[in-house]
Amino acid sequence: MISQVHLTRLKLYKDKRIKHYSDLGISIRSMASKTQVGFVGLGNMGNPMAKNLIKHGYPVIASDVFPESCKELQELGAQILDSPADVADKADRIITMLPSSPNVIDVYTGPNGILKKVKKGSLLIDSSTIDPAVSKDMAVAAEKLGAVFMDAPVSGGVGAATSGKLTFMVGGPEEEFNAAKELLSCMGANVVYCGQVGTGQAAKICNNMLLAIGMIGTAETMNLGIRLGLDPKLLAKILNMSSGRCWSSDTYNPVPGVMEGVPSANNYQGGFGTTLMAKDLGLAQYTATNTKTPVPLGSLAHQIYRMMCARGYASKDFSSVFQFLREEEGQ
Amino acid sequence: MISQVHLTRLKLYKDKRIKHYSDLGISIRSMASKTQVGFVGLGNMGNPMAKNLIKHGYPVIASDVFPESCKELQELGAQILDSPADVADKADRIITMLPSSPNVIDVYTGPNGILKKVKKGSLLIDSSTIDPAVSKDMAVAAEKLGAVFMDAPVSGGVGAATSGKLTFMVGGPEEEFNAAKELLSCMGANVVYCGQVGTGQAAKICNNMLLAIGMIGTAETMNLGIRLGLDPKLLAKILNMSSGRCWSSDTYNPVPGVMEGVPSANNYQGGFGTTLMAKDLGLAQYTATNTKTPVPLGSLAHQIYRMMCARGYASKDFSSVFQFLREEEGQ
Amino acid sequence: MISQVHLTRLKLYKDKRIKHYSDLGISIRSMASKTQVGFVGLGNMGNPMAKNLIKHGYPVIASDVFPESCKELQELGAQILDSPADVADKADRIITMLPSSPNVIDVYTGPNGILKKVKKGSLLIDSSTIDPAVSKDMAVAAEKLGAVFMDAPVSGGVGAATSGKLTFMVGGPEEEFNAAKELLSCMGANVVYCGQVGTGQAAKICNNMLLAIGMIGTAETMNLGIRLGLDPKLLAKILNMSSGRCWSSDTYNPVPGVMEGVPSANNYQGGFGTTLMAKDLGLAQYTATNTKTPVPLGSLAHQIYRMMCARGYASKDFSSVFQFLREEEGQ
Amino acid sequence: MISQVHLTRLKLYKDKRIKHYSDLGISIRSMASKTQVGFVGLGNMGNPMAKNLIKHGYPVIASDVFPESCKELQELGAQILDSPADVADKADRIITMLPSSPNVIDVYTGPNGILKKVKKGSLLIDSSTIDPAVSKDMAVAAEKLGAVFMDAPVSGGVGAATSGKLTFMVGGPEEEFNAAKELLSCMGANVVYCGQVGTGQAAKICNNMLLAIGMIGTAETMNLGIRLGLDPKLLAKILNMSSGRCWSSDTYNPVPGVMEGVPSANNYQGGFGTTLMAKDLGLAQYTATNTKTPVPLGSLAHQIYRMMCARGYASKDFSSVFQFLREEEGQ
Repeated sequence: MISQVHLTRLKLYKDKRIKHYSDLGISIRSMASKTQVGFVGLGNMGNPMAKNLIKHGYPVIASDVFPESCKELQELGAQILDSPADVADKADRIITMLPSSPNVIDVYTGPNGILKKVKKGSLLIDSSTIDPAVSKDMAVAAEKLGAVFMDAPVSGGVGAATSGKLTFMVGGPEEEFNAAKELLSCMGANVVYCGQVGTGQAAKICNNMLLAIGMIGTAETMNLGIRLGLDPKLLAKILNMSSGRCWSSDTYNPVPGVMEGVPSANNYQGGFGTTLMAKDLGLAQYTATNTKTPVPLGSLAHQIYRMMCARGYASKDFSSVFQFLREEEGQ
Repeated sequence: MISQVHLTRLKLYKDKRIKHYSDLGISIRSMASKTQVGFVGLGNMGNPMAKNLIKHGYPVIASDVFPESCKELQELGAQILDSPADVADKADRIITMLPSSPNVIDVYTGPNGILKKVKKGSLLIDSSTIDPAVSKDMAVAAEKLGAVFMDAPVSGGVGAATSGKLTFMVGGPEEEFNAAKELLSCMGANVVYCGQVGTGQAAKICNNMLLAIGMIGTAETMNLGIRLGLDPKLLAKILNMSSGRCWSSDTYNPVPGVMEGVPSANNYQGGFGTTLMAKDLGLAQYTATNTKTPVPLGSLAHQIYRMMCARGYASKDFSSVFQFLREEEGQ
Repeated sequence: MISQVHLTRLKLYKDKRIKHYSDLGISIRSMASKTQVGFVGLGNMGNPMAKNLIKHGYPVIASDVFPESCKELQELGAQILDSPADVADKADRIITMLPSSPNVIDVYTGPNGILKKVKKGSLLIDSSTIDPAVSKDMAVAAEKLGAVFMDAPVSGGVGAATSGKLTFMVGGPEEEFNAAKELLSCMGANVVYCGQVGTGQAAKICNNMLLAIGMIGTAETMNLGIRLGLDPKLLAKILNMSSGRCWSSDTYNPVPGVMEGVPSANNYQGGFGTTLMAKDLGLAQYTATNTKTPVPLGSLAHQIYRMMCARGYASKDFSSVFQFLREEEGQ
Repeated sequence: MISQVHLTRLKLYKDKRIKHYSDLGISIRSMASKTQVGFVGLGNMGNPMAKNLIKHGYPVIASDVFPESCKELQELGAQILDSPADVADKADRIITMLPSSPNVIDVYTGPNGILKKVKKGSLLIDSSTIDPAVSKDMAVAAEKLGAVFMDAPVSGGVGAATSGKLTFMVGGPEEEFNAAKELLSCMGANVVYCGQVGTGQAAKICNNMLLAIGMIGTAETMNLGIRLGLDPKLLAKILNMSSGRCWSSDTYNPVPGVMEGVPSANNYQGGFGTTLMAKDLGLAQYTATNTKTPVPLGSLAHQIYRMMCARGYASKDFSSVFQFLREEEGQ
């Protein structure tokens, strides 16, 4: 079903585009995509993402609470404004990339937030990883003002953001998906439609919860096998041809010496930090509690990553759980 | 290093074979393989396994505590004897397939056990799933009598046993592996060498522990995603192209309607029963305790399957954990 | 340190009281306590609590979203108003008793909320069990308007509320504690000061988390002992004279036949429902996640009560976990 | 029901005693108790226990695999023999105190074991903490030889052993309990009859499992409360007057500064070591698996103590789990 907001928005888009480009004999679609795009949140992830938009020819209007974060982008030609509200005043397509739910609430609904000056028909895409309930709230608030809010959290780290190889999991009205995909494709290799607003977050949270379970499971299984006399490489090979196989065993094995080019081969440097995993598992736990869903292993995985943060593993890759579980010498 | 026992055994084999076949101009290897093979334990698994040996031309000498279990095999030409000791008296290659550690101890070291009459140089292959420490004990006891004991537990159920598609994970002296493989290949599609005696058990236990973790993790993740508004098929697709991917999500999905031809599509009938999984997890728990290995998720998985057995899921496929975790009221 | 708000409030109180009562030769303290008290939230708990206030001679001004909840109180002489704001307009001491955090936020900060018309110097006491962070937010909002907010969640159910035997755990400015205690003593047998605002909630959450852990632990321990051949009464006696002793083993034993007058002696009817325990554990989980505190057993206890809700135990007493863990016949 | 073995034994006892003492006009009971007592296993616990027997006037005949362990006792007048069999040859009441199940099996049924030379009517009391199934096996083996085996594990450490304040939990034929109690009372303050053989072990295992759960629960609850702003002493006080109360919160609080005279007040030195707790939890896990009893919290407690052993807490008191769970960074 196409919502009233969407119809209004479609009409506005069409009118504007026709007015601008129709008598130039240029494809509305391709030209339209080159109108300016707002970007709020220029952190480790947002910065390379915004650069990729510029690289694809989009004029970018950006804002960040830390002015120094904007310098690099400014040098590339981006226009830097004081607040999200100001960005919304100038751009009708805005992407946000923020650390957590409270930041998203503030950037959208705060005193200088996007919704203060959002134009009717605007498309607002939030790539932060947050509580899906907050995504839904933002969507409702945006809809009241005639705008569309979509959640589009990413899978992949700073490397994938830089090389434009992120995966976007997108939630929101299906009829808006193509408009979102146009922009997101500049920054990612995969753009997956997940369903109504909030399901992008849900998909990401679910994936990371299962990832954490698989990783800890792989770590304790490999450790047990080694203790029982199995060669780790051989054990990994056997698991990977059997029903124990998972991404953590065959692509990102946590045992040093089993694979190359993964954090376990480099003292657990780089990769996806334990703190970040603990944050995502906290989000999974929170949504599970709110929906009264039993998640026994997800919950224990959360606790183990919490304990690891408390024992000095906060900044190591999350596969360092193998090291955490291994008995020390002399015991 | 080749053990003294092995050298003795090799010599005996060779002498015997040369005496029998050398002047016939026949390949010792292929003919040798057609000497009789002992088989102890003709249960749901042992029966079809022994049949496959007969099918491949091996004369089988069998024994089981339940005489009626032997009938079918007898009709196929197998010779049925009263006790494991009697089998050992006639055959120098014996395969055992028994329910648990105490049975194995009894069949090998009991008053009518194999070791009472085992011949020097015999090859004893145990395909039961048991405590690897028991496998090691049996190997030591066999070695004292000049015989070789190998553990070779299987992956795959009655179906795979019938069609000869089992996977064998083999532990024991490497120089005996080919001799074992010759027989095991008649009953399985994969025969994997895992290392010293007991590592076959270790590999199986490890695989099944990680499998259980992956299955429960997949079940709770899918359930959470559905509660958060995701379509189960779409969620499975997203997980399977992401880092949450595992065998339970992409090959044996526990959510009805996501895949065909799996137990979840058939009310969790068939497949691998919850009781059997609980048994294997108990074994994993036991070996982990003995080796002082922390296995937090494996341990919780064990408890969950224990609770399921207590709540009426004993005979359902282990993927029914999805059903167990799903809320009843209002569904 | 006494805050500015408090000083203002103290002065207002004093002025008002002197003006009203000083020349009557009556103790300001005891008379002051008989001015009207507001009460918002007349549910299962709020209703008997408000009655106890009336019983102690306090004129009550009440409000509830469901008008029918107010009838009984109205017959006892309470004045019923349309909204929390109206209550705040008439009473400068208000008690609230609501189901969850969002209700508290709405009743205090909503369009018809208490803070819309709260008077300077008012004392606002919230007895709901909610997230301590919300309590803190309410306190900050109240302080801006010159009022004092305290959290005072209760321990004890409808029975204790009716008989005036609740325990109140109170958080807020220490210098306000006596004023709060004056009212709370009419409804409870124990009024404990816990520290700054939010610590009342914290104390309650902590107690209930440890209670849940102790209860499940007692249930699984008793079950294991029985399986190992111990008489349940004897086992309880041994535990209670040893280091395994806890409230769940010596006061509220979950095994039928061990104690009288507890829910386990009455098919787990009455007592503290599994749903309510799951709610409190969800709150514990939430605050633990927010403060990055590892709570491995608390977290697993939460999951077990979640699973129980999903398996038909929602309305049974939380000690029914013993029944949940016990194996069914025929397994 | 009095077993045949017991009747035989009673008769032998009676005959012997009458022959020796009846015409001396001395109470059979008190004199009988002064005949020699065997003791096998003179480790940290066994040594002070045997000394207390000597202190009470019993001639002790002892044996240990490490001759140096016997010196001290020898100086006190004990007779030291080479093997358990030799001890059984001379004494018809024997106490054993050994580290684990395999040691018990060896000391009783090994080539130089007690049962090789045990006399009819002997009373064999094992105070080791072991698998109750092994206790039952020993009892069956002893019964075949006309002897009685009882399990009597202790609660209390080296201090209690030295001061004779141990608690004994005794399993075995009820009609033998008084005879056992006569000896055990010399070494302990409490001697509790638990039921058939193995139930002494069961009671000890159950108590320690619930103790571990209560301790970890208390540690995580106290930690959460502190993070939420509660004073630890106040929180302990609140818990101890509420339903969260347990031995670990009111008698052995794990938070430094809350109580005096407990390991948490002394950097977790002394007390009951994490390794020992992990061993007992392993035993609990093992018996739970064998009896198919779900013990979710007991199992997780086991894993946590395993992880602690792996992270450097092996020799600290088991209440150091508070320290283990507390976050390092920023503390």
